[in-house]
Amino acid sequence: MSIHSLNELNFSAGPGALPAPVLAQLQTAIQAIPDLGVSVLGVSHRSDWFAGVMAEVESNLRDLMQLPDSYRVLLLQGGATQQFSMIPMTWLKGGKVAADYLHTGYWSGKSIQDARHQGPVRLVWQGQSNGFRQLPEEDALSFCTEAPYLHYVSNETVEGLQFHRILGNDQVPRICDMSSDFLSTPVDFSRFSLIYAHAQKNLGPAGVTVVVVKDDLLGRATGDLPGFLDYRAQIEARSIYNTPPVFAIYAVLLVTRWLRDEIGGLAAMGRINARKAEAMYQAIDRSEGFYQGRAAMKDRSQMNVVFNLANPHQEARFLAEAEEAGMSGLAGHRSIGGIRASLYNGLGLSAVHRLVDFMDEFRRR
Amino acid sequence: MSIHSLNELNFSAGPGALPAPVLAQLQTAIQAIPDLGVSVLGVSHRSDWFAGVMAEVESNLRDLMQLPDSYRVLLLQGGATQQFSMIPMTWLKGGKVAADYLHTGYWSGKSIQDARHQGPVRLVWQGQSNGFRQLPEEDALSFCTEAPYLHYVSNETVEGLQFHRILGNDQVPRICDMSSDFLSTPVDFSRFSLIYAHAQKNLGPAGVTVVVVKDDLLGRATGDLPGFLDYRAQIEARSIYNTPPVFAIYAVLLVTRWLRDEIGGLAAMGRINARKAEAMYQAIDRSEGFYQGRAAMKDRSQMNVVFNLANPHQEARFLAEAEEAGMSGLAGHRSIGGIRASLYNGLGLSAVHRLVDFMDEFRRR
Repeated sequence: MSIHSLNELNFSAGPGALPAPVLAQLQTAIQAIPDLGVSVLGVSHRSDWFAGVMAEVESNLRDLMQLPDSYRVLLLQGGATQQFSMIPMTWLKGGKVAADYLHTGYWSGKSIQDARHQGPVRLVWQGQSNGFRQLPEEDALSFCTEAPYLHYVSNETVEGLQFHRILGNDQVPRICDMSSDFLSTPVDFSRFSLIYAHAQKNLGPAGVTVVVVKDDLLGRATGDLPGFLDYRAQIEARSIYNTPPVFAIYAVLLVTRWLRDEIGGLAAMGRINARKAEAMYQAIDRSEGFYQGRAAMKDRSQMNVVFNLANPHQEARFLAEAEEAGMSGLAGHRSIGGIRASLYNGLGLSAVHRLVDFMDEFRRR
Repeated sequence: MSIHSLNELNFSAGPGALPAPVLAQLQTAIQAIPDLGVSVLGVSHRSDWFAGVMAEVESNLRDLMQLPDSYRVLLLQGGATQQFSMIPMTWLKGGKVAADYLHTGYWSGKSIQDARHQGPVRLVWQGQSNGFRQLPEEDALSFCTEAPYLHYVSNETVEGLQFHRILGNDQVPRICDMSSDFLSTPVDFSRFSLIYAHAQKNLGPAGVTVVVVKDDLLGRATGDLPGFLDYRAQIEARSIYNTPPVFAIYAVLLVTRWLRDEIGGLAAMGRINARKAEAMYQAIDRSEGFYQGRAAMKDRSQMNVVFNLANPHQEARFLAEAEEAGMSGLAGHRSIGGIRASLYNGLGLSAVHRLVDFMDEFRRR
């Protein structure tokens, strides 16, 4: 098994695999950024070069997302977890009307816990009773038109559940954690007031988080927060309120270029991701119960394919043999176990075919 | 000018130059971590490999700092700026007794502004009236024994001022921002209750911050903060409260190994840094006023050598010619201009000799 193919067979749920051409460019930049001659790890965040990086990251994200001018683009530290608090600190704390939240799995549960720390939360949906195996139908949801915002997670990484529609109504600002499916397929981003996504799934290394926020939501910001937790201060400073993670942001730049130039944009990326997910779910469905998909069919995630075998012993054997065949990162989340194959943008279709072949073969043995 | 020597002549004030052997190892790890075969950018922070990285970073820091067992070691996001707020959020907010702060330059000024956001602050020293050209003598300072803590910045990166002693008295917890001189020379770290340092000077890439905190100060923590801002929650989670910046932490591991194995520890590092600073200040002092050091002699920083030429025009010429000779990062901070040569751990003595030769030559022309 060559080193090259080990990276190509990395099914890790996050930090996830980055595309090979991006890794090659990062390797070069560790020694010297082309045309600059200095390592990306020793260049000032106040340099002209880095100003260019920031400008191009923003412009690439705007192009890929087809983002209207009424949105600001931020690159922050602290992951989605920091957003779990910054959002209610900004738009919930001190208010009397509850924000609407959906509890659809592990990560939305964390967001709710952190929001409750700041102010009142109303649960529009609680999926715990069905073990987070399905998402709500439209008619099961009733949104409050007075809520300061609606918050949900578009893709639950742990349980492998994904919304294939946009929730809520247009009177209430939609806020969405897209950490694990951001830029995986076209979405009408202009229907959201705030979108956030940490980089370490589809976008780059851990340590940087993209936040896209609409001007009119910013206008409603309250609170007197320290600058690093204040969206307006961060926007004013163009994400350089303090030293940003230069390397991680440069990696995001390279990934957005790759997505645009090598893949051809979100529609093309979406087609590839659909084929990857389809291949995986077909392998599950034709196994006659040998592999048991965790999520309800209609809510299956294109990013995280979560399934079980008959028992933990068989699952352990599956993982060990997959590892031996060069495939890594397939263990399910520690909270629920089982198998999880993450099919982020950086993972190629050929890797999925390898895994599917392995699954078919393992089943036959 | 080869690419190699451009990195070696990087005098950037931060992110600063990293040692060449560390860059080489990071290059390898971008493709594949030795013995693991997967890119460091695609490995899970919950993997055994990363658990080993975290354990060794902590153990290396403990060894280098000769840290007693009564201290916890954290690796957090958000830079020193996040610490500027987390400290007063934890030990000042809601209290009636002011914390003691010293205003010795640009960065301590920021720390004071953020502390005032949370609670009462008393200025033990205000250096603004002398233009931050010197630090206080011992007898100019009177500390409050009732203060919840004393906060100061050991090295002012912008003005090139450094304390060559430990301040305060032992009844009051000492908190020190050591971002720009951490691990540059031996210090009796056991006299501090909390030390913090972002990585991007002496320790690694931007995006990770070391915090060392003593148990008895932790015991006094108040407040009901979100987990990512809560030292106790971060300690309980062993710095993996949420996804940490894996790559930046791996770089810190490599730098601590380099410091221990190639340099020989803090005493050896301190001797090298003393020679580097001495060479620079001698070049200034023998120039008969052509180069004017900014800081009072007794308070000169070993990390950031800040000086002026006769006028901005000469300074611009100096910077342009230095750049042409392959030396980068020498412009002073945008708030005060002039020249600044940063001599962090990663910068070799030979680079300083090159700069000193250039300075002598430039003066003669």
